[in-house]
Amino acid sequence: MDNPYVSMWQELGLDLAAHDALLNVLGKTYTDFFLTQKNRPDGMGYFDFVMSEVHGLRIKELLDEKSAGRKIIGSYCVFVPEEIVLAANATLVGLCSGADFAMEAVERLLPRNTCALIKSSFGFKLGKVCPYLESADMVVGENTCDGKKKAYETLGSLVNNLYVMDLPQVKSEQGRVLLRAEYDRFKTTLEALTGVAVTAESLKTTIRTVNAKRAAIHRLSSLRKADPAPISGMDALLANQVFFYDNPERFTTSVNKICDELERRIAEEKGVFPAKTPRVLISGCPQAVPNWKLPYIVETSGAVIVGEESCVGERGTRNLTEETGDTVEAMMEAVVDRYFKVDCAIFTPNPERTAHIEEMAKDYNADGVIHYGLQFCQPYLMESFPVERALEEKNIPTLRIETDYGMEDVGQLKTRIEAFIEQLR
Amino acid sequence: MDNPYVSMWQELGLDLAAHDALLNVLGKTYTDFFLTQKNRPDGMGYFDFVMSEVHGLRIKELLDEKSAGRKIIGSYCVFVPEEIVLAANATLVGLCSGADFAMEAVERLLPRNTCALIKSSFGFKLGKVCPYLESADMVVGENTCDGKKKAYETLGSLVNNLYVMDLPQVKSEQGRVLLRAEYDRFKTTLEALTGVAVTAESLKTTIRTVNAKRAAIHRLSSLRKADPAPISGMDALLANQVFFYDNPERFTTSVNKICDELERRIAEEKGVFPAKTPRVLISGCPQAVPNWKLPYIVETSGAVIVGEESCVGERGTRNLTEETGDTVEAMMEAVVDRYFKVDCAIFTPNPERTAHIEEMAKDYNADGVIHYGLQFCQPYLMESFPVERALEEKNIPTLRIETDYGMEDVGQLKTRIEAFIEQLR
Repeated sequence: MDNPYVSMWQELGLDLAAHDALLNVLGKTYTDFFLTQKNRPDGMGYFDFVMSEVHGLRIKELLDEKSAGRKIIGSYCVFVPEEIVLAANATLVGLCSGADFAMEAVERLLPRNTCALIKSSFGFKLGKVCPYLESADMVVGENTCDGKKKAYETLGSLVNNLYVMDLPQVKSEQGRVLLRAEYDRFKTTLEALTGVAVTAESLKTTIRTVNAKRAAIHRLSSLRKADPAPISGMDALLANQVFFYDNPERFTTSVNKICDELERRIAEEKGVFPAKTPRVLISGCPQAVPNWKLPYIVETSGAVIVGEESCVGERGTRNLTEETGDTVEAMMEAVVDRYFKVDCAIFTPNPERTAHIEEMAKDYNADGVIHYGLQFCQPYLMESFPVERALEEKNIPTLRIETDYGMEDVGQLKTRIEAFIEQLR
Repeated sequence: MDNPYVSMWQELGLDLAAHDALLNVLGKTYTDFFLTQKNRPDGMGYFDFVMSEVHGLRIKELLDEKSAGRKIIGSYCVFVPEEIVLAANATLVGLCSGADFAMEAVERLLPRNTCALIKSSFGFKLGKVCPYLESADMVVGENTCDGKKKAYETLGSLVNNLYVMDLPQVKSEQGRVLLRAEYDRFKTTLEALTGVAVTAESLKTTIRTVNAKRAAIHRLSSLRKADPAPISGMDALLANQVFFYDNPERFTTSVNKICDELERRIAEEKGVFPAKTPRVLISGCPQAVPNWKLPYIVETSGAVIVGEESCVGERGTRNLTEETGDTVEAMMEAVVDRYFKVDCAIFTPNPERTAHIEEMAKDYNADGVIHYGLQFCQPYLMESFPVERALEEKNIPTLRIETDYGMEDVGQLKTRIEAFIEQLR
């Protein structure tokens, strides 16, 4: 599959041998994890294609956009407002951070006790295997957790044009003022980069574009309330992952097409697993491509995943931006309102998140919740303790898991997860 | 030593048996670590007395202050402005967080991968062994690192009257606005608690009181520039630790008295170790009582510690508050200016800290720097990598250490530290 794109990767400065090795592992894992699933919706063919071309056609599209004068913005976080990026004539892409790479080089720059997501973002850079990162005209970091915040200080010397966005830690009046000021500064920076001013017209359009994408993925999520579930958690997660990479309009169309199919399935009571299969909600840290370890274990252990309370999932997509504003000022306020609702564990206190997990567990008829924490991710690991207490008080069985991108703990995880699922029957 | 205070501890709700065990270990460690040192300044007798009465007489004093209508404010961080606390007719004390206690209970509330300092603050509460915490009318938490920020959400349900102060992460205009707003809110909260309004007169006085304390400890620090060093790093650290507990005026007087003695020693070229003993600067995480592990290893391995670039040390004390203001408004601005300079690793970027380490290494004629990182303390561990690179570029040998409060790694640490000191000769 790499033939037509070799010169493109070479021009991007990728390490071709390492990149080949990565694509081989990615392809094999994808085949083993996704294509072996039974009763998949036909519409997933789109995502199979997207994944087979994730470092190929999609990169070519981005480079074509660049040739046409558009800028590519890379991001590691749902706090980077896509509405503003698009309105400034740029494209936003999520950057690779879902697999261990070049760990020896990474640990010369970062403490060993750093979460896998952050290490991975460094590994893809140091190993020269992320064509998204190498295509980006600007990379946006953000002061969410300590790990990322401090790691960006070092990443700045590795990547071209790193821009760091400050974020509040408290949802106070001051916190909102900071977010607004930072989104204004971001808009100005983008405008300077692209040479294109954000106008009321462009922002109105892009708010609608991003909302449509969110509405589509939310429609997909809602259909998972059915029993039997019309789509696996693996496939739904994949759609949520591709959300960060794909062309927005095409993504929206493709997801809505799958939703049409899922609605027919629901009418026919056709599912990916039998009715009454134990239903699990995953809550916690983001699961970036190709970090499919947990859902694969869960769905090969007798349960179906019915939702992701996660940045790659509901946290990133559930809130829409209000579309009623007519001036840039009014729409910027709406954008800030929307992102200020994100219930990331970096906020203190963060009761909205616990409330939302309970709400999701109820709405999606989950029998239990697996809290997924990346090792050394302090915000989510810390929050997992009160979350577990709150859920158990509502008689929602909860399993707290702490893991990384390695495969050493798969056996142990499977044992714990099987026991947990057994308890849900 | 516990006899006269048993009923006091009982009334505070301490677990007497556990508290006795703690005091026994503390007393023995103090004897072994401090009283065995040679050539100590006579003035250290004051601190020996303070430490022998740290849970006794000092607590009685605080309780007497309470009886007289004063409030006691507990704190875990140098960002809590003592000037304002004192001006509102309250006393500020640092809270116990330097030893492992009740770890099993702690790990039911916090992730195992939490730094020792945070675990310890929970352990002292859960084990009911911190009379400072139990005496406090209000405990102030602060949004510094993720670990503390998120842990306070749980600590709030354990301690009486936890107040959380938000802090900026960037030294931007917005960051300063936030700090000012938070200090105003803190002042208002204190005034409501004590029933005493902060006035221009009281704030002017307390700014001077706290500055005098800082100037005294800074005078002590400066005297450590001499070779031979007139005071050990152990004893200087102890003075820096007592800074957080003692009556401010008495502390200032006692430290200045020691300084008089040290000046005589320097004139006589009398030191605690021979001249030309390798000189080490410690930089990094705070060392709270009774966390004397690192300096004990260093100073029993052939080196003398000449400075602490740490919250318990220069970071907490080096900047004075400007004394020229005549209105509460002007003085609050001066207080904010002062604290906004603190070069804590929670800030991003934080170049002032690296510059200050280099400056200290030069001013104190340090032959090398040991970067002390508490395991799982992401801000300081992350920052230790660029700090090490910067120091080594200036040909300042640097050793990065990552440890906790346990004694399991003492042998290994000693081996590494001895090898490092050998390299400095």
